Amino acid sequence: MLARVLAQLGAADAASLGPGDDCAVMRVRGELVVTSDTMIEGPDFRSAWHSGYELGWKLAATNLSDVAGMGARPTALTVSLAVPGDTPVSLLEEIARGLDAACRALAPGCGVIGGDLGRAPVLVAAVTALGELDGRPAVTRTGARPGDTVAYAGDLGLAGLGLSLLFAESAEADGTAHGRALPGLRKRHAAALAAQLAPTPPIGLGAVAAEAGATAMMDVSDSLSLDAARLAGASGVAIDLSTAALESGFGVQRGQAVPLVAMLTGGEDHGLLATFAPDAALPEGFRAIGRVVPEGEGSLTLDGAACRPSGWDPYTVVPPGS
Amino acid sequence: MLARVLAQLGAADAASLGPGDDCAVMRVRGELVVTSDTMIEGPDFRSAWHSGYELGWKLAATNLSDVAGMGARPTALTVSLAVPGDTPVSLLEEIARGLDAACRALAPGCGVIGGDLGRAPVLVAAVTALGELDGRPAVTRTGARPGDTVAYAGDLGLAGLGLSLLFAESAEADGTAHGRALPGLRKRHAAALAAQLAPTPPIGLGAVAAEAGATAMMDVSDSLSLDAARLAGASGVAIDLSTAALESGFGVQRGQAVPLVAMLTGGEDHGLLATFAPDAALPEGFRAIGRVVPEGEGSLTLDGAACRPSGWDPYTVVPPGS
Repeated sequence: MLARVLAQLGAADAASLGPGDDCAVMRVRGELVVTSDTMIEGPDFRSAWHSGYELGWKLAATNLSDVAGMGARPTALTVSLAVPGDTPVSLLEEIARGLDAACRALAPGCGVIGGDLGRAPVLVAAVTALGELDGRPAVTRTGARPGDTVAYAGDLGLAGLGLSLLFAESAEADGTAHGRALPGLRKRHAAALAAQLAPTPPIGLGAVAAEAGATAMMDVSDSLSLDAARLAGASGVAIDLSTAALESGFGVQRGQAVPLVAMLTGGEDHGLLATFAPDAALPEGFRAIGRVVPEGEGSLTLDGAACRPSGWDPYTVVPPGS
Repeated sequence: MLARVLAQLGAADAASLGPGDDCAVMRVRGELVVTSDTMIEGPDFRSAWHSGYELGWKLAATNLSDVAGMGARPTALTVSLAVPGDTPVSLLEEIARGLDAACRALAPGCGVIGGDLGRAPVLVAAVTALGELDGRPAVTRTGARPGDTVAYAGDLGLAGLGLSLLFAESAEADGTAHGRALPGLRKRHAAALAAQLAPTPPIGLGAVAAEAGATAMMDVSDSLSLDAARLAGASGVAIDLSTAALESGFGVQRGQAVPLVAMLTGGEDHGLLATFAPDAALPEGFRAIGRVVPEGEGSLTLDGAACRPSGWDPYTVVPPGS
């Protein structure tokens, strides 16, 4: 079983010993960044919606984006999969193919270096991602300064729009997911569905932003409003977002119209939110969406008016507009 | 919730940035070893038997031992916990206390540097352990040579004995675990219960064995017979174990008599199985239990006679004596 899964995986450049022993061994040239994230069938994904390939892809993409959020270059993943006893090996192979393809497409040189397989009542996938800083300091959430430009790179609200469409058209009244409406949805809303099921965050721009002097950065996984408020809080400042900048920069993405509320409250795009000194040129791929303002006005405003952060929180889902 | 859990954790020496950002950041001075393992309520542990503290301890111990099995020094853990919605925060705090205590006791300087919390229908704990080789090459499973001494350090069969006792006295006929018999069991069979519920593998001896020139090494998690056969297979040799050496070295452990069958087929002790050149002095803590013999006689023998490996396999439990 393990052998069939491992056969789908290419090597990671940094690995001096891959899967098969008690540990993998990898070369590290300086500081290492480490992040872990678990996706569980039910709260985090629905098997009726994600193919195995898309699930593997999303697993890699969401963890690689945390590495990018520190300004680091992803070098390796470990993946622990636990699945029900009746899971076909072909599904595990598909997941492995998706993991490998996402690494190759989003973070060339990075690959799966280890992990394990086990049993669980629902599919559980735990990923740890490792990355290198190549001599740069890590870009944390704490460095934003008043006057800095707030910028964003990647899809914004598209993945949340995809989730809304899936719930509206591929779920029974009791919330049970089904795949009957999927082919039509994938055709009519290709960009939003792809952003939700197999996102393509701008992983390489993490290191680019760090080189360009980003003062603070994070990957936006829960929503722009929630994560911008978190970054503002960590830096002890406030952030004012601009409706005009958001709408002109992100009103239409990949051919899909995206409303402002989706940009502010949609999660799972895994784009990069970063701040740059006022006089810094933004790296290609980033667009200005607001400004860092001194503390005292609250942590997040939109065009100067109070904006209550909302989006996805694993413990309390805050409905948009509440 | 996360704040209460994080408050239980001490810092890792190698961490330059701990939990709270997209990633943790750690210093690495050379090659890094990486291992991941998931424990799931049901297949891997029973909440009726493990306290939260013991579960956290065992999570750390089982992953640290994979790092030790490479001859490395554990430096950091990441821990992803997913739990049912009605889980009290106090249980998560207990798990964190157990994780932290095991790191301090078994691998001083190592600590939890990151992770995440989520929801799942049963408790799922995914751990990744990182370690450093301090300039030594990794000790893999592939280097055993004919003539080498086979040696073992740690408990052997005690944890399996503990599991047998738990199933015999703390499980209903349908396998449901209960805790009613636990206090009596813990009193009458303290060593075996402790080995199963909160094992204390000899983590520091991994680096010691590497310094002493171990030619091959691994942590024994499934059973001595299964794992010795795996090491023999990876090295392309055979291993002959000695009944006399096993019984004189491990017949009584921590005051508990341990039968030969438990030594050969019991899993989860997480001791270290290593091979050393014939003329090498064994490091303190290791005892000779057999010899590496040339290929051709089968992968595992006991006193020269065929010995069918059996023990715990996540996909097929092979009953002893089958």
